[in-house]
Amino acid sequence: MSKKTDKADAFVTEITPRSEDFSRWYLDVVRRAELADYSPVKGCMVIRPYGYAIWELIQEHFDRAFKRTGHVNAYFPLFIPESLLNREAEHVDGFAPQVAYVTHGGGEELEEKLVVRPTSEAIIGTMYAKWVQSWRDLPILINQWANVVRWEKVTRPFLRTTEFLWQEGHTAHETADEAEAETRMILDLYGTLAKEVLAMPVVKGQKSESEKFAGALRTYSIEALMGDGRALQAGTSHNLGQNFAKAFDITFQARDKSVQHVWGTSWGVSTRLIGGVIMTHGDDSGLVLPPVIAPYQVVIVPIGRENWRETVLPRALEIKDELVKAGVRVTLDERDERPGWKFAEWELRGVPLRLEIGPKDIEKSQVLLARRDTREKAGVSMAGLAGHVRGLLDVIQQHLYETAVTFRESHTQRVSSYDEFKQAMEGRPGFVITGWCGSADCEEQIKADTQATIRNMPLDTRPTGQGCVRCHAPAIADAWFAKSY
Amino acid sequence: MSKKTDKADAFVTEITPRSEDFSRWYLDVVRRAELADYSPVKGCMVIRPYGYAIWELIQEHFDRAFKRTGHVNAYFPLFIPESLLNREAEHVDGFAPQVAYVTHGGGEELEEKLVVRPTSEAIIGTMYAKWVQSWRDLPILINQWANVVRWEKVTRPFLRTTEFLWQEGHTAHETADEAEAETRMILDLYGTLAKEVLAMPVVKGQKSESEKFAGALRTYSIEALMGDGRALQAGTSHNLGQNFAKAFDITFQARDKSVQHVWGTSWGVSTRLIGGVIMTHGDDSGLVLPPVIAPYQVVIVPIGRENWRETVLPRALEIKDELVKAGVRVTLDERDERPGWKFAEWELRGVPLRLEIGPKDIEKSQVLLARRDTREKAGVSMAGLAGHVRGLLDVIQQHLYETAVTFRESHTQRVSSYDEFKQAMEGRPGFVITGWCGSADCEEQIKADTQATIRNMPLDTRPTGQGCVRCHAPAIADAWFAKSY
Repeated sequence: MSKKTDKADAFVTEITPRSEDFSRWYLDVVRRAELADYSPVKGCMVIRPYGYAIWELIQEHFDRAFKRTGHVNAYFPLFIPESLLNREAEHVDGFAPQVAYVTHGGGEELEEKLVVRPTSEAIIGTMYAKWVQSWRDLPILINQWANVVRWEKVTRPFLRTTEFLWQEGHTAHETADEAEAETRMILDLYGTLAKEVLAMPVVKGQKSESEKFAGALRTYSIEALMGDGRALQAGTSHNLGQNFAKAFDITFQARDKSVQHVWGTSWGVSTRLIGGVIMTHGDDSGLVLPPVIAPYQVVIVPIGRENWRETVLPRALEIKDELVKAGVRVTLDERDERPGWKFAEWELRGVPLRLEIGPKDIEKSQVLLARRDTREKAGVSMAGLAGHVRGLLDVIQQHLYETAVTFRESHTQRVSSYDEFKQAMEGRPGFVITGWCGSADCEEQIKADTQATIRNMPLDTRPTGQGCVRCHAPAIADAWFAKSY
Repeated sequence: MSKKTDKADAFVTEITPRSEDFSRWYLDVVRRAELADYSPVKGCMVIRPYGYAIWELIQEHFDRAFKRTGHVNAYFPLFIPESLLNREAEHVDGFAPQVAYVTHGGGEELEEKLVVRPTSEAIIGTMYAKWVQSWRDLPILINQWANVVRWEKVTRPFLRTTEFLWQEGHTAHETADEAEAETRMILDLYGTLAKEVLAMPVVKGQKSESEKFAGALRTYSIEALMGDGRALQAGTSHNLGQNFAKAFDITFQARDKSVQHVWGTSWGVSTRLIGGVIMTHGDDSGLVLPPVIAPYQVVIVPIGRENWRETVLPRALEIKDELVKAGVRVTLDERDERPGWKFAEWELRGVPLRLEIGPKDIEKSQVLLARRDTREKAGVSMAGLAGHVRGLLDVIQQHLYETAVTFRESHTQRVSSYDEFKQAMEGRPGFVITGWCGSADCEEQIKADTQATIRNMPLDTRPTGQGCVRCHAPAIADAWFAKSY
């Protein structure tokens, strides 16, 4: 047995069970499935080709949706002069503790320190001030795919790293209503994409004051529930009001000839989504990928005696070609390893469908299809195989979503007393819905008592009339609480 | 007339003629066509949506070609610990004067300074050392799309900026031959893509020692000739030998069980290509875009009296839909401006085909197509229009390439004496081909005398036997000299 095989065997078996230690399980999956690796730079990860291929698929779907809704891409500088970041008071307070500073360049100390962008409102606002003159120049609907840097003390691949990749939309509008409509439209789009692309159900709602973006009027978020019952903030959409417009002097001549400040929004999702996918769908055997973002949707594993290269491989290659032509992303595992080893490796890597083909299958003109999600196996005729596979991939995508919805529903409870609340947070974790009075005091005390934070307050629900779970004052909303990432 | 129209009118007319001042013409085109803008960060530009859309199309074609040739994408950290950059002696000598340093992060001074990547050999080499164990792990064929930072004293949008966007391929191989084959394959691929995507003819060849990449064994480049007779290095492919493998300890167990260092390559093209496109094809009216990378391949301009919205627009919209369905990127200019103003603006923006449609055209069931490159206009029947447009776009792409080849040929001369050489460099600029002995002394002196540098030495030509143009010693190669960007 080669050194390579030794490594690989270890590779497959070394995953900590999810139930034993979820956090270790997560790290094991990330590293063993070769999604990401630690780098020599503290807090920064390397996104390996398999992980990056997932990101490329996420980008493809999100980018298409942004363009379909009228947005265009652009690119703004990585560096922001410190004085620009300082223009919006809340913004700098929120981000200054987390920024990295460039102090030297080209062999000289810089006159003004440069901030490595933690987010781009400041630099983009500065440019919008140059570009916008009249109401005819509005709206500006620009998105940027970029890297950003936020110094983090505790990091975890994909979930929280010093540098990460994201998209950040930045828009400017004539009226407050338009900005709010854009903010909500993006929130809905994020929700739809989370469902259709990531098979990840999310709760859409408004953040509390204490959790909103530094400098925003209002922040909305999508929140997903991970397999360990903790919530993950998976995307945010901010209504910036005129805060940045005033700080950066983004004015325009309005239809009535008066000079007005624009109304802004910003919104983003990041490589964190990959972490969300892992923790929503994964199991003890490793990753489970939704077909829409699986780099390989099907892995073909030839089965057979020693002469499989002669007897099985030619037919396997034909099937591969047929699937490729049908638009299926497929790989054929030709390595000289035993099938069982290959099964375990591709399960670890989360490939939605395994296609086994051996001499007997060829005789019967069929193949065996094994689903990663349910582990169901079924013989399927080679005639019309591509159509069958495509149909099955849709079924898997749908099934993953439904399973996640069921999980969330069984981990969401409504409580009316603080005792119940505390009990819920100590017991089986998940979302707890209850009334909240809107005061930061109650929010803080609840967090201190239970570690739970308000994830958000859904827009489409009205308070049930029950009082604040902690102080019994009239509730402003039903809030979704959870322990979170 | 609105304020907007005033601005836009000025916008169109304010381009400096190419013949008057090429450098100003270039900057005028970049800004007036809204490709890029200056930012408040010294030496850094903003790539505006129209310029970024060109970059996205370039990326699409290049990325597809990289994947077709077996490469995968990944992402490595932006920051490189200073000690890692210092590992390869020539590499650090080459890049240290140009780097930006992060010295503070998260409110504290860092123990070790971080370099903002000027290129990623050091960080990627460090990771490859972890990932490669056996010859079975080779080759590694990874590409990264990223931003990089090199402090520049004199900058020009797209051509030389402190931060720029690029792709950098980094590969590791078992043998020296494989690494050389990869280096050359990429050089050929760059040449083909320059032709087919950018309609830009290039000279493929090897760089002199003085011009090679810091740390490489050999550097190859593609060199294009700009409209002012200066050469532009448009892409480079480096054979790194075992230099980085030795510096970063990238070893593997070979087939014969011995431990070997891998053989590396790296290669890249950047947003500089956009500058190359502008200066290869542009004219006094502005940008001329090759159809393959034109964000809009066709602009439809409705012509007619005041009631054109009723009489012409419905048919124009139908034609737009028809073209979109045929896979043509098309925009319809519905603004309330006169047609002549629209013509000038879309010429400035380099849209390959203008489609005019007025009441008389509708009567005759035809449209008028105006080519941006030749300015030819022709009436074309609405029947089969989409096919006709697609065919014409191919013709324009081809014609732009041929025009650029003709221009290069008429600006390339072969000389045999140093007097001739100097005369050539003083007169009409362009490429000058002549013998070179291989000495850095001659290369330097020629540069001091004439400002010309060796762009590269084509691989497919043998020295003609003539001696070095300066010292008359036997020539090692025919070198292509030019003044360059």
